[in-house]
Amino acid sequence: MQAHDLPAHAGLRIDGARLWNSLMDLAQIGATDKGGVCRLALTDLDRQARDLFVAWAKEIGCAVRVDAIGNIFARRAGTRDDLPPVMTGSHIDTQPTGGKFDGNYGVLAGLEVLRTLADANVRTEAPLEVAVWTNEEGSRFVPVMMGSGVFAGAFTLDHALAQRDRAGVSVREALAAIGYGGSEQPPHAVGAYFEAHIEQGPVLEANETTIGVVEGALGQRWYDVTVHGMEAHAGPTPMELRRDALLVAADLIRDVNRIALDHAPHGRGTVGWVDVHPNSRNVIPGRVTLTVDLRAADDAALTAMDAALRATCAAAALPVDVEQVVYFAPQPFAAPLVAAVRDSAEALGLSSMDVISGAGHDAVYLARVAPAAMIFVPCKDGISHNEIEDARADHLEAGCNVLLQAMLRAANPTGVKSA
Amino acid sequence: MQAHDLPAHAGLRIDGARLWNSLMDLAQIGATDKGGVCRLALTDLDRQARDLFVAWAKEIGCAVRVDAIGNIFARRAGTRDDLPPVMTGSHIDTQPTGGKFDGNYGVLAGLEVLRTLADANVRTEAPLEVAVWTNEEGSRFVPVMMGSGVFAGAFTLDHALAQRDRAGVSVREALAAIGYGGSEQPPHAVGAYFEAHIEQGPVLEANETTIGVVEGALGQRWYDVTVHGMEAHAGPTPMELRRDALLVAADLIRDVNRIALDHAPHGRGTVGWVDVHPNSRNVIPGRVTLTVDLRAADDAALTAMDAALRATCAAAALPVDVEQVVYFAPQPFAAPLVAAVRDSAEALGLSSMDVISGAGHDAVYLARVAPAAMIFVPCKDGISHNEIEDARADHLEAGCNVLLQAMLRAANPTGVKSA
Repeated sequence: MQAHDLPAHAGLRIDGARLWNSLMDLAQIGATDKGGVCRLALTDLDRQARDLFVAWAKEIGCAVRVDAIGNIFARRAGTRDDLPPVMTGSHIDTQPTGGKFDGNYGVLAGLEVLRTLADANVRTEAPLEVAVWTNEEGSRFVPVMMGSGVFAGAFTLDHALAQRDRAGVSVREALAAIGYGGSEQPPHAVGAYFEAHIEQGPVLEANETTIGVVEGALGQRWYDVTVHGMEAHAGPTPMELRRDALLVAADLIRDVNRIALDHAPHGRGTVGWVDVHPNSRNVIPGRVTLTVDLRAADDAALTAMDAALRATCAAAALPVDVEQVVYFAPQPFAAPLVAAVRDSAEALGLSSMDVISGAGHDAVYLARVAPAAMIFVPCKDGISHNEIEDARADHLEAGCNVLLQAMLRAANPTGVKSA
Repeated sequence: MQAHDLPAHAGLRIDGARLWNSLMDLAQIGATDKGGVCRLALTDLDRQARDLFVAWAKEIGCAVRVDAIGNIFARRAGTRDDLPPVMTGSHIDTQPTGGKFDGNYGVLAGLEVLRTLADANVRTEAPLEVAVWTNEEGSRFVPVMMGSGVFAGAFTLDHALAQRDRAGVSVREALAAIGYGGSEQPPHAVGAYFEAHIEQGPVLEANETTIGVVEGALGQRWYDVTVHGMEAHAGPTPMELRRDALLVAADLIRDVNRIALDHAPHGRGTVGWVDVHPNSRNVIPGRVTLTVDLRAADDAALTAMDAALRATCAAAALPVDVEQVVYFAPQPFAAPLVAAVRDSAEALGLSSMDVISGAGHDAVYLARVAPAAMIFVPCKDGISHNEIEDARADHLEAGCNVLLQAMLRAANPTGVKSA
């Protein structure tokens, strides 16, 4: 890279210790004995965490706004407030047995970017915003990714507000109870959206790479599959007179794996849930229900995988019902933003590799309404949604520096050639 | 067969209508709305059924004795009471969703044999006994086949009496509560033991055959098998970095089936129970526990099947624990008694075939201490342990006539050449 091509403030670095300390402070709210966090969406613990974020944002002069589904936007003015904001963010609700980093890292990395710019007294052309999206995890209320889903128009505000938890409390009631039911207004335009996140998978660690340049998110098709056999006593029923539903289910489990391997490298196929009826030691299973989760990077592959699943079910030795229950289209991220992440990692001298997100994230919904990209950093053993979820401070710092540099590139469209 | 070879009373026939009516009368005790019977061992319903049997036995002059585990023996004297009795019997306890025939048929077929002999004023040389064995089903108390197991010395009386149901009631207490805790005395010698039973399998029906000449019972090995993988998110974890316990379990389910087929025609292999952890739609299973039930007609085959199971578990792509939890040796029945059943069916002009019992029965324990054999009759669709269990009156009558003739052969060792 030539010196005259350097983006503005290429030498600026975030404060890794401050980022880490903020992560640890936030993790106190809902901390579990095993070192994780249990902070379900729209509980009082969620309120405490939101209040802490809002206080931190106001400390550095941000304007804070809350929308009608409870999404929080902390805004730092730019020099050209006619430009749509460059946004980053994630979520601070957790799974019941969640960790300190999933979601929280994306929010606090965004805050750390704003803190760094405030310390250095750097103003960007476009305004910057850090978003805290409501109920990404979906542990208390479904659908998951609720706040970003409403923002992106994946479903309506009214639909989301009407959902209830197992105790019968609605999202509308829960928002009011914690004081985060904001004003109803149309989603505002977003110039670019970046989200930093722990990988929640093993690829970066296996490749000893610090930065995952996320090119997009896999499409998903989820199914409920039921095999209909005939229950019978294991003793008196010869092999040739059986209609063993579990034997057919075992073939399907194998087939789901094969279908995924046939669509390498990004095809994925998982049977995660199995119910055997009557589930008795000496009774041949009469009915087996299982879930199938197919994922692929492009819709042609996902469609082919769907056809292969249906074909293998149709060819089974017993009747098999297949019902699709979820469909998410594959979501490529915006090439210029992906390049900004890749180039920023390179300029920072960090190891990086192109990856694809296998999981859903708020960024996947944002990509429907704005250019979007993600930055992954490794997490220990690829584990998340678990109290032992862990990540290295140097990786978190590196990802946050990439976020800073990528946001600066996007927020300074006319360019400033040196800091 | 030459006329001079005819066994005594070859022309004698039981009363099929009386047998059927007794079955229906007994089935009123604990009758369920769906046409089945729920009469758990040593409940007050069991007492009512026992009382009815005892009353019926006394009506035809039988002496009734109860042993310390509650087995009932109704004895009809012979002309030579120095001979050990020729015994038949079964059980009248049922599964919670049991039917009218399982067990009950064997007891009432024995009673019908005695009634027929009483009506015809026929006396056998050896005395005859009808046994009602305590707690064959094992639904309320384990071990199963408790009464016959104590009688045959498979386990001790004290062990059986000390077992408790889920409410904490011991067998000893339950026996006392219904008045069927009899006197403790050594099991008496048995000259021959026959047991008539519905097949509880589909073989006779599939072969349109009335009488199953049971040559013995399959040996059984039961196992608990656990596959240890690593749970991980279905989305972010590529296929090549997975340790999917369910995928290995699917192979084992297939292997158990193959191992059984490798030991045709009597080899049987069943996975009836599966537990997937954490059993979540989008989580790769980290641990799968399953049961394996292997059965074979001879111990060499059963040992080979055990070795094959252990080999396939040892060769699996993930660590697999295998623990054997039950072992029953294969139990051949006594050739002279099996021949008596076969010859009686032939003499009666009934279709018959040699079969093997895949399930456990009281006769399997009795075979440890006396010559034993069984007579199977078809049941509808091979279904039992179900309220829709059903059997045809003509089949039940035919099986009872075979029982009568086989018992006459065994009980008249010096022979009487014509009725």
